[in-house]
Amino acid sequence: MTSRKATKKFVKRISKSKVNRAVVPLVGRNKADSVSTIGYLCRGVVNAVSLRGAMDDLKERLGGKGAGLVALAKLSVPVPPAFNLSTDLCQEYLLHHRLPKIVWDKTQLAVGGLENNLKRKFGSESNPLLVSVRSGARVSMPGMMDTILNLGLNTHTVECLARTQPDNARFWWDCYRRLIHMFSSVVLGVEDRTFESILTDLRRREMVKSDSELSASALRDCCLSYLRAVSEENRTFPQDPWEQLRLAIEAVFRSWNTDRAIHYRKLNRISDDWGTAVTVQTMVFGNLNDRSGTGVVFTRNPSTGVKEIYGEYLLNAQGEDVVAGIRTPHPIKDMKGDLPKAYAQLVKILTKLEQHFLDAQDVEFTIENEKLYILQTRTAKRSAAAAIEHASQFVREKKVTTKQAIQRIGYEQVKQLLHPSLKPTAETPLVRGLPASPGACSGRIAFDPATALQYSRAQQKVILVRRETSPEDIMGMAVSEGILTSTGGMTSHAAVVGRGMGKTCVVGCSDLVVDEAHRMAEAQGKVLREGDFITLNGTTGDVYLGELPTEPVKWGKTAQNFFEWADKIATLPVLANADTPDQAALALELGAQGIGLCRTEHMFFDRERIQRFRLMILSESGKDLFQLADALKDYQRKDFVEILKAMDGFPVTVRLLDPPLHEFLPKIEDHDEVATLATELKTSITKLESRIRQLHETNPMLGHRGCRLGMTFPEIYDMQIRALAESLGERLLEGGKPMLKIMIPLIMSAAELQLLLKRLKAVFNETVALKFSSHPKVMKSIAKSLRWGTMIELPSACAIAAELAPHLDFFSFGTNDLTQTGLGISRDDGGKFVPVYVEKGIFKRDPFETLEVKSIGRLIEWAVKEGRQANKSLEIGVCGEHGGDPESIEFFRELNFDTISCSPFRVPMARLAAAKAELKLEK
Amino acid sequence: MTSRKATKKFVKRISKSKVNRAVVPLVGRNKADSVSTIGYLCRGVVNAVSLRGAMDDLKERLGGKGAGLVALAKLSVPVPPAFNLSTDLCQEYLLHHRLPKIVWDKTQLAVGGLENNLKRKFGSESNPLLVSVRSGARVSMPGMMDTILNLGLNTHTVECLARTQPDNARFWWDCYRRLIHMFSSVVLGVEDRTFESILTDLRRREMVKSDSELSASALRDCCLSYLRAVSEENRTFPQDPWEQLRLAIEAVFRSWNTDRAIHYRKLNRISDDWGTAVTVQTMVFGNLNDRSGTGVVFTRNPSTGVKEIYGEYLLNAQGEDVVAGIRTPHPIKDMKGDLPKAYAQLVKILTKLEQHFLDAQDVEFTIENEKLYILQTRTAKRSAAAAIEHASQFVREKKVTTKQAIQRIGYEQVKQLLHPSLKPTAETPLVRGLPASPGACSGRIAFDPATALQYSRAQQKVILVRRETSPEDIMGMAVSEGILTSTGGMTSHAAVVGRGMGKTCVVGCSDLVVDEAHRMAEAQGKVLREGDFITLNGTTGDVYLGELPTEPVKWGKTAQNFFEWADKIATLPVLANADTPDQAALALELGAQGIGLCRTEHMFFDRERIQRFRLMILSESGKDLFQLADALKDYQRKDFVEILKAMDGFPVTVRLLDPPLHEFLPKIEDHDEVATLATELKTSITKLESRIRQLHETNPMLGHRGCRLGMTFPEIYDMQIRALAESLGERLLEGGKPMLKIMIPLIMSAAELQLLLKRLKAVFNETVALKFSSHPKVMKSIAKSLRWGTMIELPSACAIAAELAPHLDFFSFGTNDLTQTGLGISRDDGGKFVPVYVEKGIFKRDPFETLEVKSIGRLIEWAVKEGRQANKSLEIGVCGEHGGDPESIEFFRELNFDTISCSPFRVPMARLAAAKAELKLEK
Repeated sequence: MTSRKATKKFVKRISKSKVNRAVVPLVGRNKADSVSTIGYLCRGVVNAVSLRGAMDDLKERLGGKGAGLVALAKLSVPVPPAFNLSTDLCQEYLLHHRLPKIVWDKTQLAVGGLENNLKRKFGSESNPLLVSVRSGARVSMPGMMDTILNLGLNTHTVECLARTQPDNARFWWDCYRRLIHMFSSVVLGVEDRTFESILTDLRRREMVKSDSELSASALRDCCLSYLRAVSEENRTFPQDPWEQLRLAIEAVFRSWNTDRAIHYRKLNRISDDWGTAVTVQTMVFGNLNDRSGTGVVFTRNPSTGVKEIYGEYLLNAQGEDVVAGIRTPHPIKDMKGDLPKAYAQLVKILTKLEQHFLDAQDVEFTIENEKLYILQTRTAKRSAAAAIEHASQFVREKKVTTKQAIQRIGYEQVKQLLHPSLKPTAETPLVRGLPASPGACSGRIAFDPATALQYSRAQQKVILVRRETSPEDIMGMAVSEGILTSTGGMTSHAAVVGRGMGKTCVVGCSDLVVDEAHRMAEAQGKVLREGDFITLNGTTGDVYLGELPTEPVKWGKTAQNFFEWADKIATLPVLANADTPDQAALALELGAQGIGLCRTEHMFFDRERIQRFRLMILSESGKDLFQLADALKDYQRKDFVEILKAMDGFPVTVRLLDPPLHEFLPKIEDHDEVATLATELKTSITKLESRIRQLHETNPMLGHRGCRLGMTFPEIYDMQIRALAESLGERLLEGGKPMLKIMIPLIMSAAELQLLLKRLKAVFNETVALKFSSHPKVMKSIAKSLRWGTMIELPSACAIAAELAPHLDFFSFGTNDLTQTGLGISRDDGGKFVPVYVEKGIFKRDPFETLEVKSIGRLIEWAVKEGRQANKSLEIGVCGEHGGDPESIEFFRELNFDTISCSPFRVPMARLAAAKAELKLEK
Repeated sequence: MTSRKATKKFVKRISKSKVNRAVVPLVGRNKADSVSTIGYLCRGVVNAVSLRGAMDDLKERLGGKGAGLVALAKLSVPVPPAFNLSTDLCQEYLLHHRLPKIVWDKTQLAVGGLENNLKRKFGSESNPLLVSVRSGARVSMPGMMDTILNLGLNTHTVECLARTQPDNARFWWDCYRRLIHMFSSVVLGVEDRTFESILTDLRRREMVKSDSELSASALRDCCLSYLRAVSEENRTFPQDPWEQLRLAIEAVFRSWNTDRAIHYRKLNRISDDWGTAVTVQTMVFGNLNDRSGTGVVFTRNPSTGVKEIYGEYLLNAQGEDVVAGIRTPHPIKDMKGDLPKAYAQLVKILTKLEQHFLDAQDVEFTIENEKLYILQTRTAKRSAAAAIEHASQFVREKKVTTKQAIQRIGYEQVKQLLHPSLKPTAETPLVRGLPASPGACSGRIAFDPATALQYSRAQQKVILVRRETSPEDIMGMAVSEGILTSTGGMTSHAAVVGRGMGKTCVVGCSDLVVDEAHRMAEAQGKVLREGDFITLNGTTGDVYLGELPTEPVKWGKTAQNFFEWADKIATLPVLANADTPDQAALALELGAQGIGLCRTEHMFFDRERIQRFRLMILSESGKDLFQLADALKDYQRKDFVEILKAMDGFPVTVRLLDPPLHEFLPKIEDHDEVATLATELKTSITKLESRIRQLHETNPMLGHRGCRLGMTFPEIYDMQIRALAESLGERLLEGGKPMLKIMIPLIMSAAELQLLLKRLKAVFNETVALKFSSHPKVMKSIAKSLRWGTMIELPSACAIAAELAPHLDFFSFGTNDLTQTGLGISRDDGGKFVPVYVEKGIFKRDPFETLEVKSIGRLIEWAVKEGRQANKSLEIGVCGEHGGDPESIEFFRELNFDTISCSPFRVPMARLAAAKAELKLEK
């Protein structure tokens, strides 16, 4: 199809009313205007603005920025007039690579509206209307997409303006310089450094330190050099303001699909389908003079959570100067002295905004000639601790319910909460910067994102060290443990993105001189080179040489309270996968209500135990095997007693031996290890090698493991059952309230289960009778403290759930193996094609991360339904990795699972997810 | 539970009426008796005996032998009177290891019935009743279970009898000798050779060659030596005849569970639950004198199928002498001269029996003093060719319908039909024996079953060479290609079992001297040693030195007719798995109605092709890959054209590339091969090794294979599609009627299928447009000649059948991989535990042999149901190994599959199974 045909077809499809809705005048200059000129709001959406749902609708269509402006206008907050091209148009544009004429006509009309409103004229030589063209998606993607400021100027109009307004000559050339740079970089693809080097040369020639010291004529030279540089790259900076506007709008739409935006969306699980809206807004000028300025302010501290106005500002600057971290800005409280009237007005507005949005806000403002404009407001991006602190403050202030508070906390934030902190240390920090994002980490220095990726691929921990970060650095930031910059404030790109990602981040470390070109940095006379280790403390801003020890974060009282709220909402108890008494204690601290998976094999990995275990594997006769297994029994019994004690009153689910035996032996290629082991085990190398070879499997995942070991080496399972029976009895004797659940792995057939259960129950009862027959208390309680179950981790087990269920107390879905066998993907080998499948959208996400509900979910659903039909009191749980994944948890809740279980560090996230799943069901 | 308690409980359970039914007097001495004394028949079953169903009922309760006797009596054929302990009692006995008193009382009463009938007395000194105690299960298990003859004698009674009947003194001592030997061996576990060595010594002392030459006093000495030998082994031969009888009955019940019986049942898929009945029958004596004898006779030839009376007999002998092959017997026609009256009576009876049973019979008879008794009749065990010939004869004689004829042929017989025969040869045979079971085979000589097993485990073909075989040899026979014995006739153990197993078998090869002790044999002055190669021609009886070339059996006209009858009955067409034009031709000859699976990768295994394929695997850039793939296209196109031509008018289902790429490269350990390949492919060893390492997978079964290759290396699938499009077009151009079905392997997701289908269909249409746009005939027909489908071989595919079906014309179940993933068993690794699972009865059979209907079958059922609901015209087939397994075919027929497909040599078996499945559904 030719592009003309395509456009025609597209224009036909996009009806006039759709265009009317798509190009939306947003806000007038004053209250009256802000209502009368808002066509979109006139169609009955006005009253809905104050409602959450309606706000979400607006965000969906107008983007976060557009919706925020609507809300601000409704609150009579002063905002520069604007209109909006909605997100629908973005998808249309990306499909057809062209803005249809009808949309463009409407856009021109909307600019006319702004002109009328402000009594200025777009492209005028005397009283020009300048606009910014801003991106804004449904959710904030800070710095990921493009924005262009100061549109509407050309060389001719600027010459005229400078001539007729000599006092403002410097201002107009500065605006024009910024426009040429930004437009050429974003729309025409000219590299930033082209302009930066011209500016550096100019500063040198003029012998000034900062741009603000440059004279009008120097800036004029700068503009002309910029234009020449653009021409030399065979590009044209359009002199027609309308052409500037059209190209800028298109460029913003296109910026939805830059690599960094796509990557950011993948990281943050944002749909590629949403698209960005474009907001065209009248420029106000923080760079007009010294009674002008710009800043970013939070209504509450985004790092510590403290309830205080927190932010930064710069006089005589445009917003980009603050965010990009080029100049280090001043704390917001200094503004009280510089611009007292504007400051008082700002404080008032911030209070109003918080009262309206009922959450801490992150507000951008500009002051033009002492007049305050709010450019944007949004929910504050903040550290996890701050987010929880804020949510808790709002609950305490009775402004939101606990349910609302729960919804405000994201899973990435919970992960961040669990970041370690530095152990108390006597080391002196090398330098100190601003504590932009809390936590502690060590790693090798990388001076650019490519090197960071390289280290990361080589499994090296890395810390990205930059003068300042920009959106191009996003992938490097994602793979780094932490970020350190020498410039920029608490609201700089590095700080905002770092906090969002939950990375430890120290910014504005001005004593650190970073020389990216020579791949080195220097501080206190010490030279840091790429690959050197440093340690960051994001909570204090301290930077240390070398690697310092860290310790897990201790839960604050606020966090504990918060997760208890979640527990009260949730109906799905979260258990933990824990294999040792230590892990059990950690799980308990993190709020687990029991152990959903205790892998007995992990108890053998200690040096002494594994040698005994290996002897067992190498033995041949049944009697030997019995004795060798018996020698391991006491280790297991002690561990079980400890775990049952730590989890007293909570269920402890113990899985019998599962992995294939070869996992306990060295690889045949490791000749040295085989030789050492042969000596230790007092056997010959040949014999050991032959046993290793015998145990080798082509597809170990589908091999001789799980309860198949129990079937062929019954002595091992018998030993484990004896250890369990003894430990349960001991705990009862000690007066505890143990609740033991014994779980058989890898069941594939009902006959298999029945045979095993018969033997294991017999061994259990025999052991109990032998050890505790003289303790009536134990004998009486032991049956009540015991449950038998199986893992459902094979498709065949799902298919025969109805035959398994009557023999059991519980099912526990092993979703890792069920995913491997159900999809036929080995976790170890999927790396070669699973990423391609995710990229092509066949999988929404890695199926080992989020349950593939469409297929594996259906198998589970089937098994749950048939299992419950066959045994009304059957308990159903999950202990695969998906037990800690929020989206999967939602699915388990829908199927009325009785428990979920995940690794201890994921327990808080799972508790939150269980609460959110409940709230979703309530809707 | 103590054994006394158990017995009490058991006796309570077994009601009197059950005992009445369980201990059954079978047949009287004459016609009147045979009706009046048969309690069982009196209760209304008489008329039902002539019906098939009722005969089966009788067999189920009385065993084949018991039921046969009932039938014989009904036909007024002379049989020795008998009664029966039914199969129910066997299971009861095996559970409680004790014959309950009430059963034993009833047994004594039944003996009383025989005494009255014959006017003899059990245990009498003057006129004793002797009985045999015979095993007999529902189906014949020749020689697998125990039988004891001549019960009822002791030293005292024999001394009396010898004294009072001096003419018969020799006879009575001979009977007693046989009793002591057989009873002590079977019941008391004394080894045969104990008695054999006593007898050998005696013959030497008496200077006679055969036992029949021994005098009465020598035989008396023999008996006394036997009794001493038994005592020396601390066993007691019971002198009380009743004790003999009780112990013998118990021993026969116990013999159901000997290793060899269990093994035989496993081989022949006989249920372990059936149990054996015991028939207690009056002895008649073929060893009384020279007017007595015993023999085995077939109503039609069991080897060639010719309609002629065929068999063997021995004068002055008991039945065991014929069957065990100790003396080589005479052809049955010689009996006409020896005992003309008995012979005429026998011929008359045989005709009567065939008319009654409507199938060829295998009849055992004994002549006592010229009086003929029929001991047993059963359906003849015969060669496959004979079975089909007989069935066809009965159809031609209008005695049975084609449906009945079909039911008579077993699957093992069909396998045997396909055994190869010797190519015409100029070699002179070394020796010639009796052609006991047809076919031809070569292998290494093994002189005992243990050695045969050893060779077989080492993947060596083996021929078991013995003087004679016995039931202990059964496992060795099972693993051998063929069996050669130096003694025994056409009805010897080796001949009967060999025919049953479909093994090539030559017996009675008297010119061959076998010295098992020295592990050698000698014939025509040539010495054969263990491990030497010989070749057997079971159709002629010729034995050759060395390995001779064989050729596949050509279908006789009878066989072709027979399978066409099967096709007419069946509704499920049988297709074949065939990868080359040659295989396609073979499949067609064996009756396949198309190709259900053509594995395209097999086309690359030719040396020249595989090098090109390897180059493709090693290439990195997309363009290179495209060119390299393109170079392979023509090979594929030519093969496809040939296959479509061979199968003109029939569907040809082509599966796109499936195996993981590493299967095409040498193993990394094969340094030489890697080096050679690197040179050939003009690449460095390092690079090649790195690629091999890169392609290595931990679980290749769950790895980067199937359509995942099509997703990540689209060039390969594109090439295959182009080759397919071109070949289909070419065949249409040539005026053929091709029917191409393109099949995508390993689909796990609907999105994956849709993406692939979209691309593949586009490539197909593009190729067709490019090559055939000037041929309207091709353009018109090509769409009608093409179907798209997928393999359903992952559990996830079963779960999403409803989403896949609307996009496809057909599903083909890949039951091998579905079994591997569904059960989580790697075919390569299952060897370590699957046999244990079969042994423990968890699996009825290896799940890769017979579909595990309970779980994998449920997944299939689900997919079929949902797939058909979503697409009414969806065709459903199977192309895994189970497509050739009768029991699985029954399951596929029940689910209304549209086709099944199996390897060419299994096609006839599948055709028969399809017909039988249909007949089963008709019931």
